[in-house]
Amino acid sequence: MTKRKRIVVIGGSAAGPKAAAKARRIDNNAEVVILQKDADLSMASCGYPYYIGGYFNDRNMLLCTPAGIVRTPMFYLNAKDIEAKVSTEVTAIDTKSHSISFKNITTGETGTLNYDKLVIATGSYPQMPPVAGLELEGITTLQSMKDADFLRKVRDENKIKKAVVIGGGLIGIETCEALQLAGIEITVIELLPQLLTFLDWELSKLVENHVRSKGANVITDNGIAAFLGENGKLNAVKLQNGTELPCELAVVAVGVRPNVKLAQASGLKIGELGGIDVNEYMQTSDPDIYAVGDCVETVNRITGKKVLAPYGDLANLQGRVAGENAASENCVTFSGTIQTGICKVFDYAAGSTGLSEKAAKKQGYADIITVINASPDKPGYMTGKLLVTKLIADKKTGRILGAQCIGPGDVSKQIAQWAMAIHGKLTVEDIINADLPYAPPFSLPIDHFIATAHIMQNKMKGRLKGISCKEVKEKLSAGEKPFIIDTRGPEEFEEMRLGIGETLIPLGAIRKRIKELPEDKNKEIICYCKISLRGYEAALVLEGNGCKNVKVMEGGIMAWPYPREK
Amino acid sequence: MTKRKRIVVIGGSAAGPKAAAKARRIDNNAEVVILQKDADLSMASCGYPYYIGGYFNDRNMLLCTPAGIVRTPMFYLNAKDIEAKVSTEVTAIDTKSHSISFKNITTGETGTLNYDKLVIATGSYPQMPPVAGLELEGITTLQSMKDADFLRKVRDENKIKKAVVIGGGLIGIETCEALQLAGIEITVIELLPQLLTFLDWELSKLVENHVRSKGANVITDNGIAAFLGENGKLNAVKLQNGTELPCELAVVAVGVRPNVKLAQASGLKIGELGGIDVNEYMQTSDPDIYAVGDCVETVNRITGKKVLAPYGDLANLQGRVAGENAASENCVTFSGTIQTGICKVFDYAAGSTGLSEKAAKKQGYADIITVINASPDKPGYMTGKLLVTKLIADKKTGRILGAQCIGPGDVSKQIAQWAMAIHGKLTVEDIINADLPYAPPFSLPIDHFIATAHIMQNKMKGRLKGISCKEVKEKLSAGEKPFIIDTRGPEEFEEMRLGIGETLIPLGAIRKRIKELPEDKNKEIICYCKISLRGYEAALVLEGNGCKNVKVMEGGIMAWPYPREK
Repeated sequence: MTKRKRIVVIGGSAAGPKAAAKARRIDNNAEVVILQKDADLSMASCGYPYYIGGYFNDRNMLLCTPAGIVRTPMFYLNAKDIEAKVSTEVTAIDTKSHSISFKNITTGETGTLNYDKLVIATGSYPQMPPVAGLELEGITTLQSMKDADFLRKVRDENKIKKAVVIGGGLIGIETCEALQLAGIEITVIELLPQLLTFLDWELSKLVENHVRSKGANVITDNGIAAFLGENGKLNAVKLQNGTELPCELAVVAVGVRPNVKLAQASGLKIGELGGIDVNEYMQTSDPDIYAVGDCVETVNRITGKKVLAPYGDLANLQGRVAGENAASENCVTFSGTIQTGICKVFDYAAGSTGLSEKAAKKQGYADIITVINASPDKPGYMTGKLLVTKLIADKKTGRILGAQCIGPGDVSKQIAQWAMAIHGKLTVEDIINADLPYAPPFSLPIDHFIATAHIMQNKMKGRLKGISCKEVKEKLSAGEKPFIIDTRGPEEFEEMRLGIGETLIPLGAIRKRIKELPEDKNKEIICYCKISLRGYEAALVLEGNGCKNVKVMEGGIMAWPYPREK
Repeated sequence: MTKRKRIVVIGGSAAGPKAAAKARRIDNNAEVVILQKDADLSMASCGYPYYIGGYFNDRNMLLCTPAGIVRTPMFYLNAKDIEAKVSTEVTAIDTKSHSISFKNITTGETGTLNYDKLVIATGSYPQMPPVAGLELEGITTLQSMKDADFLRKVRDENKIKKAVVIGGGLIGIETCEALQLAGIEITVIELLPQLLTFLDWELSKLVENHVRSKGANVITDNGIAAFLGENGKLNAVKLQNGTELPCELAVVAVGVRPNVKLAQASGLKIGELGGIDVNEYMQTSDPDIYAVGDCVETVNRITGKKVLAPYGDLANLQGRVAGENAASENCVTFSGTIQTGICKVFDYAAGSTGLSEKAAKKQGYADIITVINASPDKPGYMTGKLLVTKLIADKKTGRILGAQCIGPGDVSKQIAQWAMAIHGKLTVEDIINADLPYAPPFSLPIDHFIATAHIMQNKMKGRLKGISCKEVKEKLSAGEKPFIIDTRGPEEFEEMRLGIGETLIPLGAIRKRIKELPEDKNKEIICYCKISLRGYEAALVLEGNGCKNVKVMEGGIMAWPYPREK
């Protein structure tokens, strides 16, 4: 019998076990070993906020297979013939001798293990703000099962009244919702001007408004200056502008950094962004060592540049690739990320794929075109819910660069569609006549996704001169006085309106009331309605009547991120 | 002032008004006229079943804009400057003189109207079985607003106890649900061996089981022989096998045919399938006449062949194309259909895009490969629901030819993803590492869509030898005795099992119980579990132990369409 190949995996959360399981399936004869620092294995870490928020109460559900079996070392041994050493920290990798050193953090026992192939899946660690008071009781992150246990206990004990979340990213927002559901008064503090930076500002502000509407407080443009306490316990946070917010709990969620300590110490190449450098086979600078998950840098498929993309789905896909390559030879590749992400925000979801406008500009895409579309996901009679999408395309080629979507509607399907459009390298024209599953319980006859492409097409063809809510607001703030028309009906106007100096001229009356418009045909006119469909039709009528400078406010009132008169 | 171009549209349901509205937006100066036989305009006909089923009670919701305005002729005139003549039947088209003749079916008034461009959107009419008794009271279709009103009245009056639906297609199934929700005992009668022929047999049977579980009766392989009645009223239907089913109501839904009477009489070319022949501009054999919607033949983008595709979404997209071309010149095209469809079936949905296995074989695709995957749409802790997908690909190139999906899970998103994959001409390999929106409220880390591609990849690489439930059943019926292993746990086995002679060997025990397997290493072994993930792992273990003929039953128990022991 030939010598058994030994494949050692460092890390037992997402990418590591996936790599181990795939390696086992590819080579039934190999010896596969996982070393895991934590006591648990295969934790569904993306599920922590929902455990804390009370969506489910059985902690084991975070650790078990779809069939309900907790993934213990015994499970791995029996079901997969994988040896999983838990509570075991790898302390060093010796690439020359092909061995690792480890230490059991419970017993203190140490040892070494030779490997033929090694897979590093050491994940990430939470960043902490460089401020005083970090040692106080009541400050936590949400990175580990231990953190989740602590915050779930906060929920169950029901003692804490006020908490802050430092950081308005994905985990910050999920934690905000979880704690709010636990009955805690919560404030999210974000250093940047907006939450969820994968969104452009306008859409982010709509999400922020929704968070506030749920009773949570949001403070942007303001960072943490210090944690304040008494007797070793947190009792307030001090912000950079001097504000002090009393609180008994602070969750720090200002991002994660690749955990590359081991890799770096063993001489593996680290990339410019601080993650382990890997090729398309997920192979590090040492050909016998692979690395996967949050600890690596990944290629953005659109820009071709390296990025950090610490997402659970990518970790699993990368693990699958590394597991197969480690078990056989380099034969499968990981093609990179388009940075697709989604986040539940109370009754909204917020998602994004590809590049935001901000990111595209930063990457040097000079000639881009964007559009915002607001419309329901289903017919009104099937209680359709609002979606607001911003689409970013290359102006010359029409190639889809990115899309983001928010709202109470089915954001997940929208983003999935855009992601597949980007994977297919499709253009706006390709989407115009897309054949998607239509029935009233699931979508509009012309799905929001296709309608977004239609509006973009109109804009690219010069038929629709769009202006964003933000640009309108800036015009008004600068003292400009465009003629603004709300084209909805009087009842709608009574119920809700912007109050930005608009004139109400319902679409149905516009042909008869042309005379009320400015005499100067070059005067700037801005039309909108609830979602700017009627606004668009009105603009066409005005243009048909000789108006030369008519714009449509994209997304209408539903995309207006500022306070309204009513 | 130049003479105004007159664009006349025949048909005021979906495609017609869309063409008219687009023409108006493109040419603000044109005269746009819709002639509509019915009294209503722009009826959301796909919504009829939900109105009948009581999902909503306001009939106007079927007729109104998202802002709640009923689309009357006055609305069309004021909001869109379109003249809509309702209750007006077009009786002839004179292509030479560029004119149409019409008759008001209420007043009897007749007239003619010249056109510069004509758009025909005459839709389809329901087929009726050629049997006796069709004149009886109590027999209806569900094609018009009048039909919807009639069936809604049936619901509201609550007198009828028993009904049959003739035809188990999309509309038949939607009607079945609607009437079942109205408290009527319902039987669906289908001439073919299965419901919903856009699905392959195995998936269709799973849907059928679900329909039955909701208390509705289903009879397949049996057509209607006669409608029986007394005093002019339906009191039973007689089936081809002689069975008589008492019922007071029969809804006929055995398909629709393109309504081409006008087009044919005016000499326009009719295609082989019986629809109006149009080119990519939606232009008929007469260059000044366009045709759109259910009355035309459409190109299938995958096969390049003409098909009938009477779907509401395509009608709208085609209308948009014809409207623009009629208003300007031929400048935009409709690129055809991939025959994407979806249907709500009580708590399930059933959808399909591209070709089914059946359709692919019929189209001459000889070298195809299929796989069935069953798994939840979301993590168990977020109450994920089952999806069963069948994927059809070209064996040599891996190009996706079609996918169908059923279950209580998010079928709509799955089908949308596959549709976009087909639009992008993607292969199985392209989907392996797709970057989709993952968060626990929306999907698994490896989405069901990607997992399906993974299983297909394993199958294409020869790692997974799949066998469908149908093939297993056929083997057993033919007296073959493969060694069958259920690889679940004992508790699961106690709760639910097939009872097809299987041996229970949990995955975790399989390495220790290798000796229980047949000594003959060439003996056929079939493994499965609930969804055949553990079944797959078990198969690999057996192969690792020298077994040469191990198969995995695709989709496991969740895809088993036959009765179970338990």
